[in-house]
Amino acid sequence: MIKVGIAGVTGMAGEGTLKILLGHPGVEVTYLGSEHAAGSEVGDFISDLKGVYQIKCEKIDPAVMAKKADVLMLCKEAGFGMKVAPELLKEGKKVVDLGPDFRIPDADVFEKYYGIKHTSKSLLKEAVFGLPELYKNKIAKANLVANPGCYPTGAILALAPLLKGSSILSYQSQIRCGGNLQSAISISAYSGLSGSGKKYSEVTKNLFIEAYGNLRPYNVGKHRHLPEIENVLSEIAEKEIKVSFVPHTVPIDRGILSTIFVQCKELKNQSVKAAELVEIYKKFYKDEPFVRILPEGEVAQTQPVMHTNICEISFHFIEGTNELVIISAIDNLVKGAAGQAVQNLNIMCGLDETAGLQFRSM
Amino acid sequence: MIKVGIAGVTGMAGEGTLKILLGHPGVEVTYLGSEHAAGSEVGDFISDLKGVYQIKCEKIDPAVMAKKADVLMLCKEAGFGMKVAPELLKEGKKVVDLGPDFRIPDADVFEKYYGIKHTSKSLLKEAVFGLPELYKNKIAKANLVANPGCYPTGAILALAPLLKGSSILSYQSQIRCGGNLQSAISISAYSGLSGSGKKYSEVTKNLFIEAYGNLRPYNVGKHRHLPEIENVLSEIAEKEIKVSFVPHTVPIDRGILSTIFVQCKELKNQSVKAAELVEIYKKFYKDEPFVRILPEGEVAQTQPVMHTNICEISFHFIEGTNELVIISAIDNLVKGAAGQAVQNLNIMCGLDETAGLQFRSM
Amino acid sequence: MIKVGIAGVTGMAGEGTLKILLGHPGVEVTYLGSEHAAGSEVGDFISDLKGVYQIKCEKIDPAVMAKKADVLMLCKEAGFGMKVAPELLKEGKKVVDLGPDFRIPDADVFEKYYGIKHTSKSLLKEAVFGLPELYKNKIAKANLVANPGCYPTGAILALAPLLKGSSILSYQSQIRCGGNLQSAISISAYSGLSGSGKKYSEVTKNLFIEAYGNLRPYNVGKHRHLPEIENVLSEIAEKEIKVSFVPHTVPIDRGILSTIFVQCKELKNQSVKAAELVEIYKKFYKDEPFVRILPEGEVAQTQPVMHTNICEISFHFIEGTNELVIISAIDNLVKGAAGQAVQNLNIMCGLDETAGLQFRSM
Amino acid sequence: MIKVGIAGVTGMAGEGTLKILLGHPGVEVTYLGSEHAAGSEVGDFISDLKGVYQIKCEKIDPAVMAKKADVLMLCKEAGFGMKVAPELLKEGKKVVDLGPDFRIPDADVFEKYYGIKHTSKSLLKEAVFGLPELYKNKIAKANLVANPGCYPTGAILALAPLLKGSSILSYQSQIRCGGNLQSAISISAYSGLSGSGKKYSEVTKNLFIEAYGNLRPYNVGKHRHLPEIENVLSEIAEKEIKVSFVPHTVPIDRGILSTIFVQCKELKNQSVKAAELVEIYKKFYKDEPFVRILPEGEVAQTQPVMHTNICEISFHFIEGTNELVIISAIDNLVKGAAGQAVQNLNIMCGLDETAGLQFRSM
Repeated sequence: MIKVGIAGVTGMAGEGTLKILLGHPGVEVTYLGSEHAAGSEVGDFISDLKGVYQIKCEKIDPAVMAKKADVLMLCKEAGFGMKVAPELLKEGKKVVDLGPDFRIPDADVFEKYYGIKHTSKSLLKEAVFGLPELYKNKIAKANLVANPGCYPTGAILALAPLLKGSSILSYQSQIRCGGNLQSAISISAYSGLSGSGKKYSEVTKNLFIEAYGNLRPYNVGKHRHLPEIENVLSEIAEKEIKVSFVPHTVPIDRGILSTIFVQCKELKNQSVKAAELVEIYKKFYKDEPFVRILPEGEVAQTQPVMHTNICEISFHFIEGTNELVIISAIDNLVKGAAGQAVQNLNIMCGLDETAGLQFRSM
Repeated sequence: MIKVGIAGVTGMAGEGTLKILLGHPGVEVTYLGSEHAAGSEVGDFISDLKGVYQIKCEKIDPAVMAKKADVLMLCKEAGFGMKVAPELLKEGKKVVDLGPDFRIPDADVFEKYYGIKHTSKSLLKEAVFGLPELYKNKIAKANLVANPGCYPTGAILALAPLLKGSSILSYQSQIRCGGNLQSAISISAYSGLSGSGKKYSEVTKNLFIEAYGNLRPYNVGKHRHLPEIENVLSEIAEKEIKVSFVPHTVPIDRGILSTIFVQCKELKNQSVKAAELVEIYKKFYKDEPFVRILPEGEVAQTQPVMHTNICEISFHFIEGTNELVIISAIDNLVKGAAGQAVQNLNIMCGLDETAGLQFRSM
Repeated sequence: MIKVGIAGVTGMAGEGTLKILLGHPGVEVTYLGSEHAAGSEVGDFISDLKGVYQIKCEKIDPAVMAKKADVLMLCKEAGFGMKVAPELLKEGKKVVDLGPDFRIPDADVFEKYYGIKHTSKSLLKEAVFGLPELYKNKIAKANLVANPGCYPTGAILALAPLLKGSSILSYQSQIRCGGNLQSAISISAYSGLSGSGKKYSEVTKNLFIEAYGNLRPYNVGKHRHLPEIENVLSEIAEKEIKVSFVPHTVPIDRGILSTIFVQCKELKNQSVKAAELVEIYKKFYKDEPFVRILPEGEVAQTQPVMHTNICEISFHFIEGTNELVIISAIDNLVKGAAGQAVQNLNIMCGLDETAGLQFRSM
Repeated sequence: MIKVGIAGVTGMAGEGTLKILLGHPGVEVTYLGSEHAAGSEVGDFISDLKGVYQIKCEKIDPAVMAKKADVLMLCKEAGFGMKVAPELLKEGKKVVDLGPDFRIPDADVFEKYYGIKHTSKSLLKEAVFGLPELYKNKIAKANLVANPGCYPTGAILALAPLLKGSSILSYQSQIRCGGNLQSAISISAYSGLSGSGKKYSEVTKNLFIEAYGNLRPYNVGKHRHLPEIENVLSEIAEKEIKVSFVPHTVPIDRGILSTIFVQCKELKNQSVKAAELVEIYKKFYKDEPFVRILPEGEVAQTQPVMHTNICEISFHFIEGTNELVIISAIDNLVKGAAGQAVQNLNIMCGLDETAGLQFRSM
């Protein structure tokens, strides 16, 4: 049994990680850290664990964390990972950071978007971006994994096969998406409000009465997840990719739907192409247990992926405009956060990648 | 007092129209037609009118309609308007058709999208598209007005000033959106489920348990409102315009948010341009009481327009991609249906355009 | 035109009152007071009024209020009414207090429930409880009206005819509800979250993510509206009435459903009795435009009263237990707050009671 | 590995049962029966299992069922259990019927409430009511278990310790609830709409647009679950118990909150008594892993039990009326259906009672 600790267990991501690990056959949770819940039973803060699962929260201290666990899941805000990761790694621990500190390789970009100074720049090269469908081998050898943001997970999985090396090359030659892909990707993403965390936010206006019945864009073109998306897509495409990214909140608790427009000039014979695209994606993700490529004619939607670690993707060619629409759906709290973190943990520790993540049950 | 009749009063659009007219100072409702409610009090079918407003529904018969009212609001499905409008017009009545029969000038396109034969083709030329912000003068003289669909209302109001004659020309020369606008407009629209009407629909899956918590695209690139959007935009732009249109349902009752991506190559100095665009739109809609152009930095959202006849519009330039994002919000049941129908009625009858539509009160 | 001022216009009740008054034919809004919005356009704080209605908010000062308006609607928290009402009344103004200060005649009870000292005890006798269906004549002569709480409105309207003087006496003799009514009324009330106002509340947990999908009792048997309910019911019954009152929140924006159990021993022949009860209630409320008594077999529910000033009531006898269930539904923001306040204003000023309140339109 | 079959897998209860069993360590699903999905992959009907879990649905035939599985979970409507159970039992199979056929021992009462003839009356004596917290020993020896309805589960667990034999006797003597308990229990229960199944229902009005924002009572005093509640409570109390039962729907997907009023005459010293009651209930349920008794001062609510097999219960004494309020919360699809069915299966088969039911994970 691998000993796992969670720092920041009372937050949205921490709570999700704990619940998944409690049903994980190869893992023992040996440390729960919380600043304000230290000394209390975790059930006092996560009400559905009350009386079901007994373990005391401890204060957040890297020395304690290193002593109590072999793998640490960091479920705290920006600035936390960079503070504790160095000590944990020095002690030989493995770290999955669900916060943003190690997601963007360029510290300047990080500092611009998050407004804080990066104090562990040397670790940025060591950190692996924890999207297993793209970086599984690196993750398997990594000691520090930067768990992706929720929006980037849905967007990147939907676009990677299209932009990736040889497959895209051969595809591009057919559909002639050509050299103008850079400015030709527009993402309209809708998210449930759990993405805003458990506190009131002036940005997302997450009071019930403000959110009820409201469809609301926010941070248009300026969301912190934008550089994360562009960075990974550029790496995959081996050229600079820019995207228009418009996130919205919608009055549901969880789920992200990304509707992505990709300009494809002069495309002909759409019905064949959509089926082709399905095959290219299926091949690309053929060993991936958590990506579901939908057949032509079906649409990705959030309900079937709620409470699962699955990302489902569908394809649609628009006859009149020769545009390709790719739609992806994830549960922002599972594949977009805690589920993916456990998937990374599994890969880092040589466990079955799907351990603890197979089915949603109840 | 103008005598107004409503055919199809128990449907979503008919109910909305009746309620607005009940508070209208210049109108008397003299006929309510319903196939299945004929002979019953309208309050037996629209429960919040029970005991508040007494009037019996009658059967739907053009002869009766023509006898009882001077203006007829047709609130029925495709195929109804073409059946009754000829007789009503012959009798000198004015007609606002909330159904789709006269929205698309090309009968072949209509037949392709709606799957029924058009039997009043001669009226297609006479009918005026009832978007008052674009066609007010024509509406004022019209006897037959085709009330726009909900999605087209939000989309067209957001795009018309950009595409329109001289204003667009001068604007284009500045921002160099150039000749590629045709294939460069992508609309991601989210709608509440009242858009699906009061019956179960296999297409929109509008059972509570299916829709709850679900973000769901449907009719991607193939929605019946697509030709309506493209036709009007092309007319405004005086060239063929094609758009990628992806409608979605979201688990709220009413409201449509349209997030529209417009490719603008080589755009520079974004902050200036957004402010400029605000001015161009404000000028374009300067006499329009129901369009609200938001200042730079604000975002259009549905809550502020719920239960109003207002369309609000915001502008956002995306730095990285040189794309312009225009976002519009309407209440699909008001500006997207019954409110706009009453606005058309007001214009057709020489009443104050805002009569009955000024404020949402309770 | 009567000049009306609103203090606390940016709160939930103030916003609702303003919107109703904007559509009111006999009233002119001449003063809007707000502590934090003073100096700004009201549209900057109530987004759907932006550009639609221009008036500047002023600071809250009784001298200014008295100068600018003839009737003042006080839409602020506990403690405000007692502070400003004395001066306003001295200046000959009429006051409708939507806050709780004058709802409970016994200052000790008020102080116990609200935790603040009552500083205008002398006005408690002068104040009239603003439930028009019970106290219309008094309201017509009053200068100070205490607008009822939302829960009390739904509960009292459902119970008053049963407890009232002669009608109850004759009824009691038939159904022998007898002397034990005191401890035999149990109210389970469910409310939308607008009842919690526009700020985060630790009591009602009104963050979206906390409330979503949650059915949640709060202040069981201890809600501040309890003494208000018991006081009025006791006055009507001319004996002390105690009720068990359990409020709950439910994830919708507005509406209160009160399911009320009344013990009725030895009741026989239920079907006759329910119909009888319908007649007793219809007679009791025969001149009341805002109470809808449903016929036997129908159930009160919130959707038909949303955005209306109506309270609908249904009756159900439980065969096995000889209990009577009365169910009432209101919109907490209209009949439960702003609508009722305008109804009171109408009565106080000799206007048509229904002015501005007739129909929900859009 | 125990071989389990599910008849009616595409319904709400069947789908839930399958998903729980897929994560169950001691069980193998060897048969899925469906009338309309026979011959198809189950993933074609339960979209989140698409590609995740492959098994073909078969037609519903008791002979096939008996051949393929050792335990059969019957997840079909009234009338199905009575038809197939006799043959399955004859073949030595164990049966858990999630339908209502064997819940009510009196066939006449069953026929009155369900409107169909009972054709397996002889099995009514053999069937055990599957509420493990009350009948665990019987369930352990049973071959036919009638899985309780959702409302009865929440109501009975909340009331059983109060009414049960010696504990209630000693408690009654203290609180003198006395002989009038019969007509003194009133239940106001609120349920999410999954209780209405996957098809449109005229009774529960489960179209999205009808249910949205609506609080709606239905079947007041006449719900089919009423006799089930009264029968079990009477058996526990060893005297006839009648309850007033008012079910409501509320626009959420899952969860039932039961707010129960119990008349307790002459009760004194409430604060002591509530604590006492907590102790009595804790003792009563001391070996039950799925009942959580909340300490005095906390309130049961649905969010903490969503997606769990837990029933949580809280106690509240109402000072003014000497009434006791007991509130219970369950997930209607888990403890109210599929979870409880698996709990019964575990007990019947000698497995750990909590197998497959421990935690909600994702």
